[in-house]
Amino acid sequence: MRKSSFHPKGGKGPQRSSGGRPQPRGGQTQSIHASLPKSWRQITGTHAVKEVLRVRPQSVKQAIVQKNLMSTPEVKELLAIFRDHDIRFEERAEPELAKITQSHQGVIVFSDYNPAFDYTHQAWEHESMIVALDGVEDTHNLGAILRTSWLMGVSGVIIPSDRAVGLTPTVHKVACGGAEHVEIARINNFNEPFEKLKEAGFWVYGLSHKAEKSIYDIEYPEKVIWVLGAEDKGLRSTTERVCDELVSIPQAAADASYNVSVATAMALAETKRQWAAKNKK
Amino acid sequence: MRKSSFHPKGGKGPQRSSGGRPQPRGGQTQSIHASLPKSWRQITGTHAVKEVLRVRPQSVKQAIVQKNLMSTPEVKELLAIFRDHDIRFEERAEPELAKITQSHQGVIVFSDYNPAFDYTHQAWEHESMIVALDGVEDTHNLGAILRTSWLMGVSGVIIPSDRAVGLTPTVHKVACGGAEHVEIARINNFNEPFEKLKEAGFWVYGLSHKAEKSIYDIEYPEKVIWVLGAEDKGLRSTTERVCDELVSIPQAAADASYNVSVATAMALAETKRQWAAKNKK
Repeated sequence: MRKSSFHPKGGKGPQRSSGGRPQPRGGQTQSIHASLPKSWRQITGTHAVKEVLRVRPQSVKQAIVQKNLMSTPEVKELLAIFRDHDIRFEERAEPELAKITQSHQGVIVFSDYNPAFDYTHQAWEHESMIVALDGVEDTHNLGAILRTSWLMGVSGVIIPSDRAVGLTPTVHKVACGGAEHVEIARINNFNEPFEKLKEAGFWVYGLSHKAEKSIYDIEYPEKVIWVLGAEDKGLRSTTERVCDELVSIPQAAADASYNVSVATAMALAETKRQWAAKNKK
Repeated sequence: MRKSSFHPKGGKGPQRSSGGRPQPRGGQTQSIHASLPKSWRQITGTHAVKEVLRVRPQSVKQAIVQKNLMSTPEVKELLAIFRDHDIRFEERAEPELAKITQSHQGVIVFSDYNPAFDYTHQAWEHESMIVALDGVEDTHNLGAILRTSWLMGVSGVIIPSDRAVGLTPTVHKVACGGAEHVEIARINNFNEPFEKLKEAGFWVYGLSHKAEKSIYDIEYPEKVIWVLGAEDKGLRSTTERVCDELVSIPQAAADASYNVSVATAMALAETKRQWAAKNKK
């Protein structure tokens, strides 16, 4: 069992988070996250923090809690979980948390587990959906897509490694726990996975408001990849060519477009609806 | 025609925005929006600003432009529209805009038109949808719902006047122009409209993850009201009682829930899908 010097299990009363730790030189509070591995995910937001602690508490190696929130019920609940799992935590003033992310809600935890989607695996479920994001660079959108993908049972998300946001604290917060359930593959050559997945029986549908067919004109097969582009730019032409079919979502105004996370949800929902209707028969 | 003292039409070259205006005393830049009527909508975000200028330019009474962005192509395009419609604009330093809203993108315009949804009118279209939000207090969610509602052709949105956000700059920005197209009714007695609308032929469906029936188990009539609650609390029991039917959206995890704007989109999309399928027959 890993021992924590900060809050030995079984200690009485509230523990002093910095107990026994040598103070940094110069009287300055040392920025805690600067000393942590860069590969650790920084997770914030009530739902996201609770979900990583529920699903894989062993991966949580460190936590920072906002000093003046230590006695709130929400934080007390988390502190109990930290103690149960021997997770180190430190109390810090708000600006220290804000340095990591503005939207921290008083608690940030650090996980050394990085969910990676292995799209080469063969054990696909009978009905499987994958989401591929061609340049979605907004953290709110990626977070929202992870949240919906989780609840829709999506197998994984594919993003190009050069044109996409990573798993930032905001992504985790907006995903509300979805980042613990939906694995992500970051791909240098964005088109490579499609070829492999087509061989595995997947069909590739690209959302494009230029498409004549709508998402309701397709009868979806059992293995579906939904490809979505950046909001203003749409799909790259190289990506369009990879798609088996381009489809649109009906809309009342020609010049506007749905938010990409909303469009993703509608495409996934229609696929699932068709599967459920077919399975009922 | 309203004359503007700031940029007389036909003036040569770039106009000085403060030309001829007496400087405020004390050498301080006066906060411009403090002097404007509180009822004027503060609209920001590229898409939202363009949409109000396209749909109802006469309603735009004032604009503020960030000083160091005056020569960018996006702002120049807007300045030309301001001049075409005799819209006053002033150059101000960034902090002046940030005082109004952090997410301003360099331009804020003020409109004296407040779209109000008259749910008592009788001229409903053959197929009509209304969205009722029972305590959605997040500006991003309200904005996202307006954006989707616009593209889905929703007739109007009903919100309780005491438990909801207003049309803030963030709502406008996230709505991407939707706020110009979807009218809002703010109701003191939230249940009152439902009785009137039921008499007009509407059926009321409440989204609740406690519901056994899913959104796909219903055959939707021609006039539908979708009622959605706050994310963590759901529908109030008084609101649930008003609904003709409670329905859920299938989800893979029991404890989590869809974002309310995503759930709205899926409910609206399913209603429209059924109508389109019926009309094809």
